[in-house]
Formats: sequence, C-alpha cells, structure tokens
Amino acid sequence: MENFTFYSPTFFAFGKDTENEAGAYVKRFGGSKVLIHYGGNSAKRSGLLDRVKKSLENEGLEYVELGGVKPNPRSGLVYEGIDLCKKEGVDFILAVGGGSTIDSSKAIAAGVVYDGDFWDFYSGKYIEKALPIGTILTISAAGSEGSPDSVITKEEGMFKRGASGNAIRPKFSILNPALTQTLPPYQTAAGITDIMAHLYERYLTNSKEVEVTDRLIEALLLTMKYEGPRVIEDPDNYEARANIMWAGMMAHNHSCGVGRSQDWNSHNIEHELSALYDCAHGAGLAVTMPAVFKYVMNHDIMRFAKVAVRVWGCEMDFDHPERTALEGIEAFRNFLISIGMPKNFEELGAKKEDIPKLVNVLCRGDGRDGTISGFVTLNEEDCTKIYEMMV
Amino acid sequence: MENFTFYSPTFFAFGKDTENEAGAYVKRFGGSKVLIHYGGNSAKRSGLLDRVKKSLENEGLEYVELGGVKPNPRSGLVYEGIDLCKKEGVDFILAVGGGSTIDSSKAIAAGVVYDGDFWDFYSGKYIEKALPIGTILTISAAGSEGSPDSVITKEEGMFKRGASGNAIRPKFSILNPALTQTLPPYQTAAGITDIMAHLYERYLTNSKEVEVTDRLIEALLLTMKYEGPRVIEDPDNYEARANIMWAGMMAHNHSCGVGRSQDWNSHNIEHELSALYDCAHGAGLAVTMPAVFKYVMNHDIMRFAKVAVRVWGCEMDFDHPERTALEGIEAFRNFLISIGMPKNFEELGAKKEDIPKLVNVLCRGDGRDGTISGFVTLNEEDCTKIYEMMV
Repeated sequence: MENFTFYSPTFFAFGKDTENEAGAYVKRFGGSKVLIHYGGNSAKRSGLLDRVKKSLENEGLEYVELGGVKPNPRSGLVYEGIDLCKKEGVDFILAVGGGSTIDSSKAIAAGVVYDGDFWDFYSGKYIEKALPIGTILTISAAGSEGSPDSVITKEEGMFKRGASGNAIRPKFSILNPALTQTLPPYQTAAGITDIMAHLYERYLTNSKEVEVTDRLIEALLLTMKYEGPRVIEDPDNYEARANIMWAGMMAHNHSCGVGRSQDWNSHNIEHELSALYDCAHGAGLAVTMPAVFKYVMNHDIMRFAKVAVRVWGCEMDFDHPERTALEGIEAFRNFLISIGMPKNFEELGAKKEDIPKLVNVLCRGDGRDGTISGFVTLNEEDCTKIYEMMV
Repeated sequence: MENFTFYSPTFFAFGKDTENEAGAYVKRFGGSKVLIHYGGNSAKRSGLLDRVKKSLENEGLEYVELGGVKPNPRSGLVYEGIDLCKKEGVDFILAVGGGSTIDSSKAIAAGVVYDGDFWDFYSGKYIEKALPIGTILTISAAGSEGSPDSVITKEEGMFKRGASGNAIRPKFSILNPALTQTLPPYQTAAGITDIMAHLYERYLTNSKEVEVTDRLIEALLLTMKYEGPRVIEDPDNYEARANIMWAGMMAHNHSCGVGRSQDWNSHNIEHELSALYDCAHGAGLAVTMPAVFKYVMNHDIMRFAKVAVRVWGCEMDFDHPERTALEGIEAFRNFLISIGMPKNFEELGAKKEDIPKLVNVLCRGDGRDGTISGFVTLNEEDCTKIYEMMV
C-alpha cells in the first residue's frame, strides 16, 4: 500500500424529507446569500425547488437562482454564474441536481474567488480557495456530492476536463433517495454505470498488497449488482435507491481508493464521446469499459480473474485464468445491457468515421503528449483500436 | 435503511514516516501549546516520542507531557490531565498511543473546556465542545482515531462507560503501520479482535434492506480474516499491518454502520470483564462474542447464516440454516483462538464466582434498569447465562 492522505469532511444528511433541512444547513455552514444552481425543469415541476426556497426563507436567507445546467455542463454557464455571484454578493452555492449541476456549482465557487480565468483549474491548477458549497442530490451517479472533483466541457474545442481541490468538497450534501424516484429508467441505469465505473477505475491498479481497498470496492460492486436490477424493475423501490445512493457516495469519496494507483482511462476515453455526441456519461462508459478492459486485461490477468470470481460469481479456471478474466468482463457487459445501457457506437449515437477526430482530441487535445496514462499507458494507436472495438 | 447523518471530518495521513509531520499538522489545525499524552515506556524506548517532540519543535510549538495512560484508561489520569492543561494554557491535545491514550485525550479535551465534572459526559451528556485533538496511532484496534467516541473507567465503582460527540473527533490522525510492528503478538491479536467486534456489532442489526453496509462490513471482516494470520505469522509484515490499520479506521468511523440499528451488547458485556480483571479489551471480546452470538442467534438465523457463508466460506445448509449460522460462529471462534486469543474465563483470568457481581454492575450499575439493549434486549438472567457460557 502506498502512503496517502485522506480527508472527507462533508456532512451528509441522508433519508426521507431531508431536503427540508437545506436552509438550516446553509446557515450552519456559514451562508447568508445563496445561489441556487439547478438544471432543467424537473426540479421545478416536482416542487423540489419550491421546498428548497421555503427552507431557505424559513431561515431568513436571501437567494438568487441560476438554472439551465445541462448534462456534460458547459463553461458558458459557469462564466454566467461567476458574474451573477459577484454582482449579487453571493457567499454560498447550493446545487440542486445531479453531478452536472454540482460540478458546475464547484466551478462557479472556485471562479468567484479567483482573479484569473476559472478554466485554469481545468488545465491542471489545484483549487485552493472557493465559496462554500452545499448539494441536494437528485441522481446517484457522479459521486460529486462527496468528492473534491469537477468536470466541465469547454465550448471552444469541446474539451471535457477535470479539476480538483479540497476547497470544492461540499460542506454538506443532502441525500434523499426518494428524489431519484422520478428519474427515467435510462438515467437511473446510466447513474448505476457511472458508479460502477468509479469502482472499476480504482480497482484497476498497479499497486500491490491492497486487500482492504480491493474488498471495499468489491463490496460496492456487489451492492450495485444486487440493487441495480431491483431499481430498474421497480423505480419506486426506495430501499434499493437508498443502498445505491450511499454506494455512489462511498464509491467516489475515495475511502475505497486510498493508497493505490488508479486507472481512469475509461473515463478519459468516454469523455470525448459525451463531449462530441452529448450522450449520457454513464451510457458512454457502458460502451467504453468492456472494450478498454478487454484491451488491457493481459496486463494483469489475475486482477481481472479476481473481480470475475468475487463479484460476478464466475468459477475460477485455474488452468486458463484468462478465460475467467474474460468471463467477468462479459458478465459485466451483459449486466449493463440488461439494465438498458447501449452496447456499441450505433446504440450510443457515435460514428465510426469520427474515430480519428476522437483520438486526436483525446491524445493531443489541450496540450496532451499523444498518450493517456493509467493502469496501462495508451497511445494513439491503442486508443484507435479501443474505439474500433466499440463499433 | 433508516435516515441518518454522517460526518467524518478527520484528516488522515497514512504511511511510512508520517509521524514526522505531526508538528505541521498541529499547526495547520490551530494548536500552539500542546499536551503530548501517552502511555508507558514503549513510545519513549522506541524513540517515537523524541521524533514527535522534534517535529513540534521544528514548527516552534511549545508542549507539556503527561504519560502513564494504562489499558482501560482511568478517570484519575483524566482529572490530572485537565488540571495540567488549565494550568499550562494548553490549546491542543496530541495523543501518542492506542485507543486508551486517544480516549483519555478525548476525555481531557472535553473536560478542559467544561465547568462541571467531565464524568457527566460518560453518564450520557453529549459532548458539544472540546479542545482540538490530534493522534499518532500505535496500535490498530479501537478505531478511536476516526471516531467521536471515548471509553473511560471510573475508579470509584469501576464503571467502564462511553461518551460521544463530534467535538472529540480528532482533527488529524497519523497512521503509520510501521509503528505497530513492535507490538507483542498478543496485543496485535487483541487489536484484530477489537476491529472485528466493531464490525460484528454493526452487522447485528434489526434494520431491513441494508445491503450496502452489510457488504462493506463483510469486506472489512474478509480483510481481517486474510491479513490477521499474516501479521501474526510475520510481525514485520508492513503490508498486512497497513491493510489492518485502514480496516480498523473504516470499521469504526461509522461509514459502514450508517442507517441501521446496531448491537454493542458484546462490548457492554465485555466492558465489565476488562474493568474488573484489567484484561485486554480485545481478549475479553474474543471470549464474549461467540457466547453472545450463540445465545442470540435464533433472533435472526439468516443474518448469522449470511455472514457464515459470505465471510467464513461456510456452505449454506438450505434445509437447516441454523447449522450454517452456528458453523459461522464456530469458524469465527476458531479464528480468534488461532491468532492467540483466549477461549474461556480461565484463559482470560476471570472467575466463575464473580458472575453475580459482573451481572449486577452490567445491568444495574450507574443507573441502568436491569437490562441492556441492542440486537436483542438482555436481562440479568440472560447475561448470567451468557457469562456462564464463557466459563
């Protein structure tokens, strides 16, 4: 196990009706003038936004609003949010939505207290300072509610890039599983896939002797394998949604990923798909992961065999462990298809002829050197082959 | 799953040589005059204490010292520590040791800023305020390095009782697995047992639909089952100690116990043993847990069968699940014996004729009403039978 530091100071309020405590938590964590940042109309239509406003009013808090966050959130709205916060003297950002809204909130929070262009943070600068953020989560997926990370797409060039810093960890996150019950099944499934991707990205490590985090990751994958089909079968299953919601947070607050190298190449390869085709990130990952895993599995057959046996219930083939490894990847792929995820470029809405463009942005965009690194370092030829496997 | 809040803001620095950063962390978390609180001579002998002092001096921090914490830490030293801190104007407590030292530090930290008797907190009063605490952990066991809990024994009456409050969560905890390499095997094994007890106490729940926390608990039990024998076989196995150390923290920072009722009757029943005989808490638990589990298993056979199959590798007996449940308890007991833990009263140094006294203090001491509650509510007759099973 490698040396590490771990810090996850977010306060979580979990369960039914917890969104009504939003005002009290904003106050507790020092807010007085709030930006409510949200996505489309669903938060309005469901009455969630009104309940949140009422909760702020009950505490005597002022607020302004900025809606319109889209999946794969864009830099344009971030600039707008920064201007609005500066103009209105906002001192607290309250994200009401999923990972996109939270990530957009984090970008605004960092940008408001920074003199330069907020995109600097998405080009590698660590975020040292930000306005405090709270979240009310409406989809289990990104894990952004408990993470120090944010992903934004820059409209010029359509680069999708990440930023990080303990300053953008939410002060509090309100997790009410019932708020996710109105999601369309496809979005629920895309969220499940994203959570499982966060686990696999951590599982694919070159670090040795990491049994505790291996076991924790497997525990969360097993949870998703059990609860995923239950929630797809019955979208009103609060209990299944509750288990998925906590798993989604634990998958990404890093307690299961400490002390080990990680992969994140599936995320990198997918980001270009959702940036170009505006597909759901989880759907893109469902097509990407099996291809990446098959491409890199020879790098460490026993690691893939282990997850196959421990999570997917495959029988170990001691004479041909590579068969077990492959069986586990196929089992994962079939699981994703069974919950309604796409299985190839066509179902995703991606085009074979775009592969050279995808590879170029992936490996050369925004100053990259022709490779992406992770479990295995991949060059342009590797990435081309991987995209081709998805067709 | 039940509604809950979760808050674990401790900063963890994990790995080799991290104790040399103690001064920097004390400074970062606001300390200027430090009480170094520690146990016996091992911290002195090993040079650890000198390294810590040097680290504080390097940051220009002042300090005073108070050693002498014993296993099952006593109220007397806490009063002494409180007086010392007040006299010297201490504003930060640095615990160098295991759970006993950390718990004693927490009691001092709460007592210094409280006008009444610190024992009020151990009689049920929630701790709202305390001096900031940092820890340098030297044994994986209690999980106190990441928890809001403390257990102290009151010398008058020998009551062993717990207190709790987010204010006594450590601001930082330094976890260097190498510091645990000098522990005698018996203490290492007692620590392993304590960690597994924290997991079982959470596993034994009456809450339904808690798959995610069930799986996380099982993951940590599986880790202990794998790493425990490795570290007993080779005390210098840094990697095994590292996995155990992180498992010990995760077992007790509550991320695996949220949203579910818990047991803690094994802890309550054991506390009277270590209070009376001054045995290692983990050793007492090794004798207590199998007896308690056998006594209560009919309350929920399938729960005991589940841990038997998933953790202990028992084959499910679908016609007689109670046989599987019992087999799991026996497997756990044999595991504890195999790492060197005692298996009965005699090996623990406890006496059958003391049982009435033990039961009386357990069920009637310090204002209790004749029962202890948890997975199953136990009365004096139940507790008598359980102690008799341990003879």
